[in-house]
Amino acid sequence: MTAPVRLAVIGCGRIAQIAHFPALEKADGIELVAVCDPAEDIARAVATRYAVPAAYSDPRQVFDDPTIEAVLVAAPDRFHHTLAADALTAGKHVLVEKPLCSTVEQARELVDLVDRTGLVLQVGAMKRHDAGMQFARRFVTEELGQVRTFTAWYRIGDLRAGIEATLFPRVYADAGVRQVEAGFKADRSRYLLATHGAHIFDTVRYLAGEVTSVVARHRDDGTDQAWQIILITDTGAIGTVSLTVDVPGQPSEGIEVFGSDGTVRVDTHFPFYRRASTVHAYSAGRTVVPELVDGDAYERQAEAFAATVRSGGRPVPDVRDGLAAVDLIDAVAQAAETGREIRC
Amino acid sequence: MTAPVRLAVIGCGRIAQIAHFPALEKADGIELVAVCDPAEDIARAVATRYAVPAAYSDPRQVFDDPTIEAVLVAAPDRFHHTLAADALTAGKHVLVEKPLCSTVEQARELVDLVDRTGLVLQVGAMKRHDAGMQFARRFVTEELGQVRTFTAWYRIGDLRAGIEATLFPRVYADAGVRQVEAGFKADRSRYLLATHGAHIFDTVRYLAGEVTSVVARHRDDGTDQAWQIILITDTGAIGTVSLTVDVPGQPSEGIEVFGSDGTVRVDTHFPFYRRASTVHAYSAGRTVVPELVDGDAYERQAEAFAATVRSGGRPVPDVRDGLAAVDLIDAVAQAAETGREIRC
Amino acid sequence: MTAPVRLAVIGCGRIAQIAHFPALEKADGIELVAVCDPAEDIARAVATRYAVPAAYSDPRQVFDDPTIEAVLVAAPDRFHHTLAADALTAGKHVLVEKPLCSTVEQARELVDLVDRTGLVLQVGAMKRHDAGMQFARRFVTEELGQVRTFTAWYRIGDLRAGIEATLFPRVYADAGVRQVEAGFKADRSRYLLATHGAHIFDTVRYLAGEVTSVVARHRDDGTDQAWQIILITDTGAIGTVSLTVDVPGQPSEGIEVFGSDGTVRVDTHFPFYRRASTVHAYSAGRTVVPELVDGDAYERQAEAFAATVRSGGRPVPDVRDGLAAVDLIDAVAQAAETGREIRC
Amino acid sequence: MTAPVRLAVIGCGRIAQIAHFPALEKADGIELVAVCDPAEDIARAVATRYAVPAAYSDPRQVFDDPTIEAVLVAAPDRFHHTLAADALTAGKHVLVEKPLCSTVEQARELVDLVDRTGLVLQVGAMKRHDAGMQFARRFVTEELGQVRTFTAWYRIGDLRAGIEATLFPRVYADAGVRQVEAGFKADRSRYLLATHGAHIFDTVRYLAGEVTSVVARHRDDGTDQAWQIILITDTGAIGTVSLTVDVPGQPSEGIEVFGSDGTVRVDTHFPFYRRASTVHAYSAGRTVVPELVDGDAYERQAEAFAATVRSGGRPVPDVRDGLAAVDLIDAVAQAAETGREIRC
Repeated sequence: MTAPVRLAVIGCGRIAQIAHFPALEKADGIELVAVCDPAEDIARAVATRYAVPAAYSDPRQVFDDPTIEAVLVAAPDRFHHTLAADALTAGKHVLVEKPLCSTVEQARELVDLVDRTGLVLQVGAMKRHDAGMQFARRFVTEELGQVRTFTAWYRIGDLRAGIEATLFPRVYADAGVRQVEAGFKADRSRYLLATHGAHIFDTVRYLAGEVTSVVARHRDDGTDQAWQIILITDTGAIGTVSLTVDVPGQPSEGIEVFGSDGTVRVDTHFPFYRRASTVHAYSAGRTVVPELVDGDAYERQAEAFAATVRSGGRPVPDVRDGLAAVDLIDAVAQAAETGREIRC
Repeated sequence: MTAPVRLAVIGCGRIAQIAHFPALEKADGIELVAVCDPAEDIARAVATRYAVPAAYSDPRQVFDDPTIEAVLVAAPDRFHHTLAADALTAGKHVLVEKPLCSTVEQARELVDLVDRTGLVLQVGAMKRHDAGMQFARRFVTEELGQVRTFTAWYRIGDLRAGIEATLFPRVYADAGVRQVEAGFKADRSRYLLATHGAHIFDTVRYLAGEVTSVVARHRDDGTDQAWQIILITDTGAIGTVSLTVDVPGQPSEGIEVFGSDGTVRVDTHFPFYRRASTVHAYSAGRTVVPELVDGDAYERQAEAFAATVRSGGRPVPDVRDGLAAVDLIDAVAQAAETGREIRC
Repeated sequence: MTAPVRLAVIGCGRIAQIAHFPALEKADGIELVAVCDPAEDIARAVATRYAVPAAYSDPRQVFDDPTIEAVLVAAPDRFHHTLAADALTAGKHVLVEKPLCSTVEQARELVDLVDRTGLVLQVGAMKRHDAGMQFARRFVTEELGQVRTFTAWYRIGDLRAGIEATLFPRVYADAGVRQVEAGFKADRSRYLLATHGAHIFDTVRYLAGEVTSVVARHRDDGTDQAWQIILITDTGAIGTVSLTVDVPGQPSEGIEVFGSDGTVRVDTHFPFYRRASTVHAYSAGRTVVPELVDGDAYERQAEAFAATVRSGGRPVPDVRDGLAAVDLIDAVAQAAETGREIRC
Repeated sequence: MTAPVRLAVIGCGRIAQIAHFPALEKADGIELVAVCDPAEDIARAVATRYAVPAAYSDPRQVFDDPTIEAVLVAAPDRFHHTLAADALTAGKHVLVEKPLCSTVEQARELVDLVDRTGLVLQVGAMKRHDAGMQFARRFVTEELGQVRTFTAWYRIGDLRAGIEATLFPRVYADAGVRQVEAGFKADRSRYLLATHGAHIFDTVRYLAGEVTSVVARHRDDGTDQAWQIILITDTGAIGTVSLTVDVPGQPSEGIEVFGSDGTVRVDTHFPFYRRASTVHAYSAGRTVVPELVDGDAYERQAEAFAATVRSGGRPVPDVRDGLAAVDLIDAVAQAAETGREIRC
């Protein structure tokens, strides 16, 4: 058996606490050796809870520690690019929360850096590690035939806050930091499109193919934001994505892909239920529903990252997938603004 | 109790036999007094089966018969306009299969004729009489708040032929006529958009509001035809319609409407199951599913028509709804062709 | 291609009109040559509607007609035995509505008569010809392993009347006959157990194995009748059947069978929806749902009967299955009355 | 606002770690002040993780600590009686994991002790605090009318181990202790009936009424254990419970109750999904499905306990409910053994 990958988490805020630490302490192939957060008390609280030996307040301490092989970047979006770049430069493998970064230029820089260093950079679009999504992907490849049309949706429901209150563990927070971060989400429309779009656009690319152009309409009435998008792929498939924040009721996320020989529907659950997506795959007169129980996509993502670090293969999704997602977010924003079809 | 409306059916082909006769012989307020079809043996066979006193081969015979108050036009689409116009001119109330007619000009003529004669013209978009659809409509009006976004779909599945073989009664057919009619469906793309779009666009207008412009993409690979459409309503709601012929598997039709206070999902069953649409209406923390058993939309449509003939009110949908549907079909065709947003 | 089986229907009441005639006029391998009912006007109306050449009022006319090869007995339950026996004696093959007859003694007589004449007698437990049920049966045989436990239910819902009003064609009825028949259902408890139990007990035997003893409790409060039953099979499986008339809401019928290697759930729809049972078959990490569109069990039953008449094999279900169902009904009645476990 | 209840947890094994600590650290009205386990390293590890001030190895230390107001007993079943009795005697309120204790005699002793001390004893049948179950209970009381029949099921599926591996946090375990405990589950049949029956029998009593007698059959083939049970209530309702360990596939738990005016179906999810039961409540032509997001029954149970300690009312379920559950388990065991109907 190979030695576990010695990993540090940079950024111990909400997403790290609700998603990553519970996953990392159980993940095969990972040894959590350090945490790092500018709020020292939070770093220490988390280190105590998860029995992590080191609690740092400056990423430099992580980069300078030669025993650390890899970092998980879970800091706010605007720091992704710098932290990932610095980590790669320091010779660390990187698992970076989605979106990879904020602009296409930053993404291209990271592509170069990865190519130059030969290190692993995996983007934290963890739904690629959802066992249901992976089943659907195999079905698309092996049984669905030519992809013709698809319909995807990503709707935040107003019941989400209650679900989070139930599912999330106790979170150590710093009121000051929270205030500051809220300010950086001031361009709410762009923030929402990027943070949610990063998921659903990656899913479209994973299951329906490479998107070559988009048409979009955006609605913003102060409370409600919505995008209705038509996407065209390189093989001529046409599909829609509906992205809505909020709708009354339960959150809802999924995609249906219709091919020449089969169809597949993927219903993705709120991730903290730790359930694999429910998949209905139809071909040849019957629908198959896999009963998948290994449902923590964050844990599976970490295990896949560790395996790639050890095996040296291509991570999924990789830095180019991260670039494509950022590109697609840009294209949709521009299409909505101009009313024109935008190539990407 | 008022006397039943004395009705003749013009056009005894497939749709009349599978949908209308079984409904009409049971419908309250209707007395089926004549059938008319150019194929005399079919007219006679149908008259015998349903115990109808008169079997005509020429619509003139119907129009000249002063005891007939109303006609159901179930002839092929290209005859709708002429037959409806002639019937109105002859003083008969009209229930005409959807689409109302083939062009916006023809539709405008019928609007004028209806206004001039004061007779009832009801369009056979029978889903307006689906008890589930009506429940959804009331929910939209009373509980959903402002309509913000919607997603509609209409997908013919390749299992449909088998379902039809099971559900349809024995059909009396004339091979020659069938041949001729197939020729008139030669512009398959236009035919499919009109015949299926007439349903789903009417549903969008019924539940989400007046459509003011559309963007569309069309895919035609010889076997498969698909339209992906973004629609914008007069109140600023944005939605999508996916129209696909065929997909592998079961047929599927429905709409989800998301408002400020609630959401509603309508799953419309293949009509010959005679089931009301299944509706999930969410607001205020709970989903309501009406259990509706009066599920023959064709029978309910006929009963509503009879009631309107006797009461003199506005039929649903009326000639202006029929015009709007034809207009919307045109707009989508044009949007798909030009790639531009088309107002309607 | 072999010649169709020349069939007469004896008893043209409700079940014949709602279930059998629509099926028979479409069934492959059947030629409907005569109908017979003591109410002459009903026989004539039905013959006209379905274009049947002969309308008789006395079963003797059927038995004496040498061109008739087979009869479908759809008369009231208490006539099943005599009509089936007379038909066999006259050399006709028999498809007899369930239950086969009223007593175990009558059933044994029919077993003897079938053995003696070598003619086909098939019992009209048409759910054996439901394509979903047949899928489930194959799954039980091939993938489920040893049957261990099962749970079955058959609940008449109070919405059933409305569903019937929607789905049934116009029925020709004789008020006098209806009155007389109601009288014969006076022992309501026995009637309900026999008429509904015939279905669900046959399903249990088809999917879970031969029942060897039963324990039962019965509840009768004037309006509501219910049986809760534990059944033990010859291989040691234990299961329950819940039979309830009425419950508020939709009717509901089905069975779940749990084996050593798999489980199967069968949800049987109200038959006049003409849908195959919905089946969920789980084994080896996935659930398979067949999408079955040939859903008229009455038509499939008639076709299977015709095929057996021509091929000479064993009909399904045969006279011994009919005997077993009657025996099981008796055992449950006795178990409920005595509170003891009854062998069957 | 009242001060939180100062609570100690006695027994820090698996159920405490997977269910109680994550709930207690978030529960309103609870302050976790001590943990106690004979395995000192486990007590310490848990205390560190959840920031609990005191880690004891002897329950006496808890009982002697005057600042502790209440205890949660999460030790193995055979210690429930003694620990609960000692805690009450020491003046502590008690929340004790189900089953309350092992025998009816022990349960009666605890009833006396509770009556004498006036302290709160709540049994940890946490499904009473499942928001879905509570919705169903209100529906039964207010809309379902007279309860007539019911069907309940509790099936452990063989996919459960994988689900647990996904949902459970990292568990601190002591291999020696595990070995010893396995020995105490040697009468597997009795253990399974008690540990699972405690849940489903409590649910039956909660939703369908007081059970007065049972008939049962048991199947044990070495691997598979199953009970099929008919239950009769004090108002004459008859129902079934199917209890099966294991079936292939997903675990499944629920109940359907049929009344004179409505019916309700409750599907209870595996508790560590932290989802409220899904409820379908039918009456008057529609089904209502509450969308309930506060789904951690362990947290809700703890909060209800704290509220009762402060308010002084009757806990739910109380010591008499615990007694009734033990009594019912005994009755079923005896009914299965003797083949006779057993009163309880």
